[in-house]
Amino acid sequence: MPAPAMNADQIANLLHEVFPQAFYPGCGLMIERVDYADIRVRRHFQEGYIRPGGTISGPTMMELADFAMYVAVFSAVGPQPLAVTTNLNINFLRKPGKGDLIAEARLMKVGKRLAVGEVTIFSEGLAEPVAHVTSTYSIPNTTN
Amino acid sequence: MPAPAMNADQIANLLHEVFPQAFYPGCGLMIERVDYADIRVRRHFQEGYIRPGGTISGPTMMELADFAMYVAVFSAVGPQPLAVTTNLNINFLRKPGKGDLIAEARLMKVGKRLAVGEVTIFSEGLAEPVAHVTSTYSIPNTTN
Amino acid sequence: MPAPAMNADQIANLLHEVFPQAFYPGCGLMIERVDYADIRVRRHFQEGYIRPGGTISGPTMMELADFAMYVAVFSAVGPQPLAVTTNLNINFLRKPGKGDLIAEARLMKVGKRLAVGEVTIFSEGLAEPVAHVTSTYSIPNTTN
Amino acid sequence: MPAPAMNADQIANLLHEVFPQAFYPGCGLMIERVDYADIRVRRHFQEGYIRPGGTISGPTMMELADFAMYVAVFSAVGPQPLAVTTNLNINFLRKPGKGDLIAEARLMKVGKRLAVGEVTIFSEGLAEPVAHVTSTYSIPNTTN
Repeated sequence: MPAPAMNADQIANLLHEVFPQAFYPGCGLMIERVDYADIRVRRHFQEGYIRPGGTISGPTMMELADFAMYVAVFSAVGPQPLAVTTNLNINFLRKPGKGDLIAEARLMKVGKRLAVGEVTIFSEGLAEPVAHVTSTYSIPNTTN
Repeated sequence: MPAPAMNADQIANLLHEVFPQAFYPGCGLMIERVDYADIRVRRHFQEGYIRPGGTISGPTMMELADFAMYVAVFSAVGPQPLAVTTNLNINFLRKPGKGDLIAEARLMKVGKRLAVGEVTIFSEGLAEPVAHVTSTYSIPNTTN
Repeated sequence: MPAPAMNADQIANLLHEVFPQAFYPGCGLMIERVDYADIRVRRHFQEGYIRPGGTISGPTMMELADFAMYVAVFSAVGPQPLAVTTNLNINFLRKPGKGDLIAEARLMKVGKRLAVGEVTIFSEGLAEPVAHVTSTYSIPNTTN
Repeated sequence: MPAPAMNADQIANLLHEVFPQAFYPGCGLMIERVDYADIRVRRHFQEGYIRPGGTISGPTMMELADFAMYVAVFSAVGPQPLAVTTNLNINFLRKPGKGDLIAEARLMKVGKRLAVGEVTIFSEGLAEPVAHVTSTYSIPNTTN
């Protein structure tokens, strides 16, 4: 397995620089592990994420999955902040309780134009996943 | 076409009551039109939605699509706040600029257990859609 | 709306030439209408499509949806038989009975690298759709 | 891990009985391994699967993925031939060459009403997958 194109600190610094609305000290997002095309991130629990039924809202999980894919793309192709999602498909499997969410992302393909990955989301303390995502990112041309 | 099970004011009141973290005066979400299984909602633009490249972030559009589906489900089956998303698939088509997002949702199936719909998201002033979503909601049993 | 890049006869001839295993006289597939990025195709019913429960099998509908997208791509970008599906998402809505299937495909985006469309599948004689598909095709580079 | 609800021979016999158009001696489909909610199937190569570009057609892979999910559902919930696909999402990752296709399916959720799984498709002899699928099956009520 190749080394990651960027490590966790480098990715955190890049995100803080280019996307300060989403990633800033105290935002509740943490990059926990970065290997090549294989990463783990965490979203700290906040009461605002709760939806009717006492569970965490779907958009909170979708945002975390998209963030996890963004980090995974950086780990494989380096600093490409203009990479954009073209497709995201999520299946909600179980209702997470009031706790942190952990997302593990793994790229299944790293092409010149597209990266395709899957993200599994866990609720801290539960063995079985709460959601599963597949997603495609489009990588901008870098040859000009 | 049957009359909607709830009108726009009734849905807004229900959402404010059961989901105040997401839907409150000044939250920027508006329910613009409610017919049976066919609705339109709007998200007012905020600078915080901008991501690298000067466009609105994917999660902002996913959250709006999920909200639109929730409103469409209410329009067809009435007050079921415990209805939950089981699947959402989004294709990002064009990059929206700095303006309101408008989502039109239409249910293609209203079954006893599942509702399936599609959502088309527009950027105000652009004729062509910026994103397209299909989604399935699970409707709780109401017979007990 | 621009004229289609190829008409129904031209597309049928191309398919017969490059993909004779799937498209040949008596194969049961018909191209019924071709406008720009907006087409209709038909699959004649055969008993072999029936699955347990007396309904038409899912793969029969998936194959028809993929064929409809292929024809829609030709209608917009011309003879590109090496265009390939990168993603297909299908929701099965109702169980079709023993009759022809009709698929209407419409491209929502025709980009340089990707075309994104939706396909609605009907069972002849039923007003409501039996399946809904979104799909992305990758278009090969043609500049070399 | 619980024992599978049916073993490979029992599933093959059931399929041959209820779905003889798709599963018969010489059809080219083989059930290679059945654990609880975790199975492997194979599709023997035939020249008829080739599409323009010399690769195996998308519908051939979609049909195999749907078959793999059907077998996985039987492995978890027993003989339920009326279980039907409600959603299938496929990402095509690499172009398979002229060889057998192998599909590994794993259920991520086995609920009372829905089973959700993922399928990874390999081309014999290639380490990296050629396609990845997530799919939902609806399980009929069995309590009456």
